Amino acid sequence: MLAAVQVISEAADDIVVERRFDMTADGDVVPGIVWTPADALGPTPVVLISHGATQHKRVANVLALARRFAGDLGFTAVAIDAPGHGDRVTDVAASDARRAQLARRIAAGPGGGSVMNMSADDTRRWVEHLGQGVKEWRATIDMLESEGLVRDGLIGYWGVSMGTMIGLPLLASEPRVKAAVLGLAGLPVEPGPLEAAARDVTAPVLFVFQWDDELVARDAGLRLFDALGSADKTMHVHPGGHLGIPLHERLDYVAFFKRHLGA
Amino acid sequence: MLAAVQVISEAADDIVVERRFDMTADGDVVPGIVWTPADALGPTPVVLISHGATQHKRVANVLALARRFAGDLGFTAVAIDAPGHGDRVTDVAASDARRAQLARRIAAGPGGGSVMNMSADDTRRWVEHLGQGVKEWRATIDMLESEGLVRDGLIGYWGVSMGTMIGLPLLASEPRVKAAVLGLAGLPVEPGPLEAAARDVTAPVLFVFQWDDELVARDAGLRLFDALGSADKTMHVHPGGHLGIPLHERLDYVAFFKRHLGA
Repeated sequence: MLAAVQVISEAADDIVVERRFDMTADGDVVPGIVWTPADALGPTPVVLISHGATQHKRVANVLALARRFAGDLGFTAVAIDAPGHGDRVTDVAASDARRAQLARRIAAGPGGGSVMNMSADDTRRWVEHLGQGVKEWRATIDMLESEGLVRDGLIGYWGVSMGTMIGLPLLASEPRVKAAVLGLAGLPVEPGPLEAAARDVTAPVLFVFQWDDELVARDAGLRLFDALGSADKTMHVHPGGHLGIPLHERLDYVAFFKRHLGA
Repeated sequence: MLAAVQVISEAADDIVVERRFDMTADGDVVPGIVWTPADALGPTPVVLISHGATQHKRVANVLALARRFAGDLGFTAVAIDAPGHGDRVTDVAASDARRAQLARRIAAGPGGGSVMNMSADDTRRWVEHLGQGVKEWRATIDMLESEGLVRDGLIGYWGVSMGTMIGLPLLASEPRVKAAVLGLAGLPVEPGPLEAAARDVTAPVLFVFQWDDELVARDAGLRLFDALGSADKTMHVHPGGHLGIPLHERLDYVAFFKRHLGA
């Protein structure tokens, strides 16, 4: 298992076996983690977990999801550091500044508009992240398939906020992803590449949205849900801000992936 | 069990015992059904199921929900015929005409505005139904409590469309209802009694909404979700029309009532 990538470390408990790996994609080293169910005897359905901006492959929420997917569903979960995130941070001060900026925008309360409401410099870096992020997830899927980790092509994607900005172009162009949880993101009024990507999505989507999101206006979120091309789509809305998705929503992710990727 | 009401019939299978009863409320005879889990040894949490306009206490959807609540959760379920519905229809031709009118409005497609978009005559009958419906659910709760059917005061309410129009004033004034599934309804722009009732609701609510509802405009539905006073509220939105809530949403009702009324 994981023959073509460098396994950095391995740890196991009753629920999951966690393997830290380094993968080469497009010349870059991409650090990732694979969580396989402790009792897996062969390939399983796989869920890709795509963390948010300023986060990394092993933040508490990613870890909790991976354990749920492995423990509740018997699925494999995979996370990678997005470009410029986690172990790929090269300028720590700039990374800290971006995290502080995001925290300030959240503290400022709702009304900030959309996640696209950024400086020109941030926008350039952002678009770069998205395109590279899509390529790296595609490379990850290639790796998972060549390693024989995927049962019957059953691959799901979980990614909100930046995970959705990467997820939309990924889903639009990658038929190997069969179902996705997206959310905490929106579309501007003017048509653009993200809207085009959303319209090209056909896989079933569970879209989670926060009614008082400090980074995404309600209208922008509803426009994104509306634009999604999937015939089978659901939106789950809760009161509260960008960081406030209720924990019980994790049970809904599990139910969603069970319905679409379960045996 | 059911000492104070007249039991009309009883039937049982592996999952539920179904008892048809007649109850007197405010001088009227109100026909209802209680479904208790076949293996119940005492009181259980109870879910009140409030059918939609032109339906009755034993339409397929009500029956399916009652069996889910009893079978999956071990809860008791109760349905009554709303005023002028089911066994309480006195003018069959008028009832048939209302059913045909509703079918025509659904067939005409989205854009019909809100469910309040009705003739003066229909509006009068409607308001009458709502007030009387609230009184009769209150009498039903009294009956369930005096019969000793309710465990620890755990009472939930499931009602969409007309079930929500009756449910809002019920929930606003009845602290004995601890959690509710509502939906397929909206609020007009102008403030009114339904909006006031929505603001007075404090119990947790799962609000289900159809993105292409022929009877309720999107804005009206979002306004109702927004107005709900509950700190713990969730909206589940699906594409499709008034009659198109996906069947898998029933699992979400089960999870919701389990979370709020479960042991």
